[in-house]
Amino acid sequence: MGRAHSNAWKKATLFFDLPFEPVLKVACGRKKEELDKFAKRWSWAETETDWRKMIARDDIDIIDIAVPQSLHFEIAVEAAKAGKHIFCEKPMAMNSEQAIEMLRVCEENNVIHYLNHNYRRVPAVALAKKMIADGLIGDIYHWRSSYQQDWITDPDFPITWQLKKEWARAGPHWDLNSHCVDLAHYLIGPIKDVTAITTNFITERPIAIEGSTGNLKGRASEGQMEKVTVEDAALMLVNFSNGAVGSFEATRFANGRKNKLSFEIYGKKGSLTFDLEKMNELGYYAVDDQEQLRGFRTILVTEDNHPYMENWWPAGHIIGYEHTFIHAVADFISAISEQNSISPNFHDGVEVIKVLEAGLQSSYEKRTITLNNNP
Amino acid sequence: MGRAHSNAWKKATLFFDLPFEPVLKVACGRKKEELDKFAKRWSWAETETDWRKMIARDDIDIIDIAVPQSLHFEIAVEAAKAGKHIFCEKPMAMNSEQAIEMLRVCEENNVIHYLNHNYRRVPAVALAKKMIADGLIGDIYHWRSSYQQDWITDPDFPITWQLKKEWARAGPHWDLNSHCVDLAHYLIGPIKDVTAITTNFITERPIAIEGSTGNLKGRASEGQMEKVTVEDAALMLVNFSNGAVGSFEATRFANGRKNKLSFEIYGKKGSLTFDLEKMNELGYYAVDDQEQLRGFRTILVTEDNHPYMENWWPAGHIIGYEHTFIHAVADFISAISEQNSISPNFHDGVEVIKVLEAGLQSSYEKRTITLNNNP
Amino acid sequence: MGRAHSNAWKKATLFFDLPFEPVLKVACGRKKEELDKFAKRWSWAETETDWRKMIARDDIDIIDIAVPQSLHFEIAVEAAKAGKHIFCEKPMAMNSEQAIEMLRVCEENNVIHYLNHNYRRVPAVALAKKMIADGLIGDIYHWRSSYQQDWITDPDFPITWQLKKEWARAGPHWDLNSHCVDLAHYLIGPIKDVTAITTNFITERPIAIEGSTGNLKGRASEGQMEKVTVEDAALMLVNFSNGAVGSFEATRFANGRKNKLSFEIYGKKGSLTFDLEKMNELGYYAVDDQEQLRGFRTILVTEDNHPYMENWWPAGHIIGYEHTFIHAVADFISAISEQNSISPNFHDGVEVIKVLEAGLQSSYEKRTITLNNNP
Amino acid sequence: MGRAHSNAWKKATLFFDLPFEPVLKVACGRKKEELDKFAKRWSWAETETDWRKMIARDDIDIIDIAVPQSLHFEIAVEAAKAGKHIFCEKPMAMNSEQAIEMLRVCEENNVIHYLNHNYRRVPAVALAKKMIADGLIGDIYHWRSSYQQDWITDPDFPITWQLKKEWARAGPHWDLNSHCVDLAHYLIGPIKDVTAITTNFITERPIAIEGSTGNLKGRASEGQMEKVTVEDAALMLVNFSNGAVGSFEATRFANGRKNKLSFEIYGKKGSLTFDLEKMNELGYYAVDDQEQLRGFRTILVTEDNHPYMENWWPAGHIIGYEHTFIHAVADFISAISEQNSISPNFHDGVEVIKVLEAGLQSSYEKRTITLNNNP
Repeated sequence: MGRAHSNAWKKATLFFDLPFEPVLKVACGRKKEELDKFAKRWSWAETETDWRKMIARDDIDIIDIAVPQSLHFEIAVEAAKAGKHIFCEKPMAMNSEQAIEMLRVCEENNVIHYLNHNYRRVPAVALAKKMIADGLIGDIYHWRSSYQQDWITDPDFPITWQLKKEWARAGPHWDLNSHCVDLAHYLIGPIKDVTAITTNFITERPIAIEGSTGNLKGRASEGQMEKVTVEDAALMLVNFSNGAVGSFEATRFANGRKNKLSFEIYGKKGSLTFDLEKMNELGYYAVDDQEQLRGFRTILVTEDNHPYMENWWPAGHIIGYEHTFIHAVADFISAISEQNSISPNFHDGVEVIKVLEAGLQSSYEKRTITLNNNP
Repeated sequence: MGRAHSNAWKKATLFFDLPFEPVLKVACGRKKEELDKFAKRWSWAETETDWRKMIARDDIDIIDIAVPQSLHFEIAVEAAKAGKHIFCEKPMAMNSEQAIEMLRVCEENNVIHYLNHNYRRVPAVALAKKMIADGLIGDIYHWRSSYQQDWITDPDFPITWQLKKEWARAGPHWDLNSHCVDLAHYLIGPIKDVTAITTNFITERPIAIEGSTGNLKGRASEGQMEKVTVEDAALMLVNFSNGAVGSFEATRFANGRKNKLSFEIYGKKGSLTFDLEKMNELGYYAVDDQEQLRGFRTILVTEDNHPYMENWWPAGHIIGYEHTFIHAVADFISAISEQNSISPNFHDGVEVIKVLEAGLQSSYEKRTITLNNNP
Repeated sequence: MGRAHSNAWKKATLFFDLPFEPVLKVACGRKKEELDKFAKRWSWAETETDWRKMIARDDIDIIDIAVPQSLHFEIAVEAAKAGKHIFCEKPMAMNSEQAIEMLRVCEENNVIHYLNHNYRRVPAVALAKKMIADGLIGDIYHWRSSYQQDWITDPDFPITWQLKKEWARAGPHWDLNSHCVDLAHYLIGPIKDVTAITTNFITERPIAIEGSTGNLKGRASEGQMEKVTVEDAALMLVNFSNGAVGSFEATRFANGRKNKLSFEIYGKKGSLTFDLEKMNELGYYAVDDQEQLRGFRTILVTEDNHPYMENWWPAGHIIGYEHTFIHAVADFISAISEQNSISPNFHDGVEVIKVLEAGLQSSYEKRTITLNNNP
Repeated sequence: MGRAHSNAWKKATLFFDLPFEPVLKVACGRKKEELDKFAKRWSWAETETDWRKMIARDDIDIIDIAVPQSLHFEIAVEAAKAGKHIFCEKPMAMNSEQAIEMLRVCEENNVIHYLNHNYRRVPAVALAKKMIADGLIGDIYHWRSSYQQDWITDPDFPITWQLKKEWARAGPHWDLNSHCVDLAHYLIGPIKDVTAITTNFITERPIAIEGSTGNLKGRASEGQMEKVTVEDAALMLVNFSNGAVGSFEATRFANGRKNKLSFEIYGKKGSLTFDLEKMNELGYYAVDDQEQLRGFRTILVTEDNHPYMENWWPAGHIIGYEHTFIHAVADFISAISEQNSISPNFHDGVEVIKVLEAGLQSSYEKRTITLNNNP
């Protein structure tokens, strides 16, 4: 994440005409040696191992929070109190109380807050949003989504922080469904009620050998096992306030799926499909196409007139994962410059966390949970 | 359905080496004129408008029930009592009481009963079953399925018997999910509990002009409306007895999807994908493939060594929808000849109906329903 | 081929409203025992091992020629002289002299002649034709086609009649390119000049053990080899009279391709793509689609309003290879009834054979061959 | 191109561990104002409008030639004479005489020369190369490629330098086929003979309004037309020295294809497919896969163990077009550091140009041209 963020901060002004250029001032981390090496490569001016000291500085305007979610709350609250604008990774927090408080403090201190559900800024997703807003899809009947990975299907894969409740709050439901719920909010609208089940396929895992867990690739030690305290998969059904129904599936046990966030949207006038592993493409079916000639079309979203794409390459020359971060940074800088809010932000994040919490509650209580959307 | 069944009875012996040849003896229907025309075209020897008279005949061994599900119970019970073997369309019945009784009477009378969840006999599906049985997929984590159509997205599409509870019991949950639940039972195993939601997008529809409803294409009359009494979409989550989790979505409101039954199966050793609109293909990911070279492959299931395919054309020459009926008839005739049972049958059908009923109950009561699998 | 043809003759009247019903009168073949068995299964009334005797009968109106191409000429000429209508397999003949004479005799005797380039009657192909005729594609720039199979990539695969010049005239160029050239004529127009190369990958093969060659699956005998006297692959470039350029590739050495006839058409207003292994689908790109939303769409050609499809199943229920034969028989019977010509016929066949001959000549002489289209 | 190159020079050391960091010293261009703006954004230290002065400087080690091909010869020869290492865009030169001389001068002056056929460094293409080298594909039978774009299908699209012979030498044959021929050399081997046709669909075009031609999007002036002096499409067949046959199609008239370079490779043991518009995927068919389970698989080339990918993101997070330039720069810097040659270089470029020249000659003379591969 440090690389993806640093790259975005450096690259945004090269490809986008922005009102000012971000300065990479202080890189913050716990391990001094690694941190210095990282900062040197990415030309961060300084390093710091105590995030409170970093926030205390006067020469910093923006705090980019790219740490595990268990740390978001404390950092974000302090940063907001110090008047820093916030660029925060997802999932936003460990629970809705934290999220609501993060939002409150930001609003109180008038800082701009951005929550990095970065897939809103995939050009194909932004185009989908535009098409829905333009009425091309009509009243929406169905949202069908899944986020599938396969990095822990091997029972010998050692335990990581992502598999421990105290660090992660939950498993793919928190990590992956948060993306899908944010997209559903963005593209379909608010969720009224939630019905979910969760499960575990592997209940304990070996402890990783010290220092071997970089990049999710730790080697397992022999014999010592630790309990997995988050779910391995989460499935969720929802009713949206506008009458649509939706489904979500998040798992790290879908062999062959590396980072497959996919959604299907079916509306009265048209349908849309998307798959993050083919992120430059958007599927579209138009009911109004001439009879006989209707069919799902694949829009290669790389044209000048597609969202964000005039800043990149000629048509047909695709972009990748990291570009979503650059789009986010570009929009965030513009928002700061114009004193505007940007979406998704902590308000959006609160709504996502509420839905995720309701999902966990539903899975525990084995019943539908209605969301209170009027706090 | 009459055409698809008649075609299968006529064609099975042409392409399969069967122990005997079925004789198309009596075609039964309500409307004499249409029936005679149909019988003549398909060379049925006689016609009959009273199904009880047909069942009473001594010169008939098999009753093929291809009528709406509200009529299955009565006909099947009478046929079984008369000692006829039964080839029955799905969904099996209006409720589990009917289904259980149908099964009981068949067993009591020692007749062979077949329930036409015909998609088990798509060669790609039969191959999937074989692969799972051979251990190629390993312990199964996920079943993800949907059955999507779009024939009633137009609110002006007139009401049909499929949209009335008294004729159909339920909507796509009964009609489409029954296929998917049968496949899930076949490929994954028994279901332990069910959590579901259902919804309606269009609550009333025009009444069709008399005689205009053939082939789901009725013209609407003006002004006269009738209430839709079944759901328009049904979404369901399940836990399987073996620890897998599963999801089902059935809808007639997915614009662009004509007859898209699709499933994904993720297991410890491999994954499978299928889409009925591309029914000659099976997707397969093998964890044991050489590292670097892993990927979902598309098996074109048209080779001599694929299930049923040695009876058809050279490799690469695809087959279609109607062939599943021919495979069913061929296996049914063999089963009768060998005095064997055939799957799926009324036993399988009872299990499907129980799951579907639990799904409806779950959607009404907004809670998970545990199935009693030990009657 | 006997099965595919018999099936079509039997089935056409079941699914199409035809002016008369074909009677399966005499099945003709060389091996009496096999023939009788075949005739019984398919309910041919009689059998005959001497085709001249069959043609001499008064009670036969149609001769269906489904034998290797080396025999077409003699049979077709005799049949035409006897006033029989002709349904003839492709490739039409061994050379253009034969083909021209076959056409001449048919015209002289006023018989209706049909040449079974059956892929014109794939609904997706017929739809492509209609779209081009309706002006949806505009002036055509490119035709890009290939026909790929893989049944002889194994050098131990024994020699068959298809690999011997005296039986087949040529290899995939004759067998496969004939289909593609016919489709190019149908969809694009006449060809002006031809530039081709051919090659052999395996120059000799084992002789098959007697009686083991059914269904292209002979076992090889040890030691005895025979020379392959046709090409293994043929590649061809053409200029069409209307200014389009085209390419053709025919091979039996494309591992993984079972029966992949594919084409791409690029025109001023739109583009089309087709793949026989997914024969129910047609790809279409419309230049006139709204900017931002352009993309290749996949038309699932199974709707009532698609060519031939109102006679089959509901939308989304696909058909297969054998249906092209049924469509051909239905149209042929109608043509006879209405005393109309039908396409493709021997006239079309002559044009195909001329192009194929020019291709062979070009590959021998290593230069472009201009066709004389004004005989 | 300036952006893609600058980005690569800046970014290579961020993602790759390189022996030294390139300094962006002097940006050179004709138009002072635009150049200064560009240099500022990309942090080039200085600018220069006279390329000879730039080459004359002592403080420069590398010359990156990213100008139209008509200028390559002069600049490359001067740069080599000055002892600069050369990173050169393709197509290499206007003819083989130029190319041969460029190579000669580079070798004489011991400079490292790299020719930017960048698609060799798409990870999927590099993986294909490795698989062929490892023997997974076996003896190769077929290469089938095309490079399709659609940016000039509109007859009103104004003329650009790419459509003028004096600037571009030829059309898509030079621009696009050069990529495909380079890949064919890389993946299959040397070409023995060439047979080609070329054509023009639009023979004259409007002259663009001054200053409006940026990014291939000029507005046409009214009335003034200029002759197109290069071909619009080029089709080419080849025999490779190893016995394989190949085909190439290059066009700017394939509506719906934005930047579709695709190839298929068929060998004795396996097959490969690639499409630049889906550049993170490689298709693979293995003859040795278990019978019944064979099929083309899609390898998502984003794993740590795939070429170049350990430097990027977790599996399933795709990369894009610009990354090929970064890979090239990284390898080029390593080559300089280790005093090694790098491929493709001017030697490879000479071979490509010879094939392209033979293609043009073949199209003029309407006959096969045999290459003299032993100069």
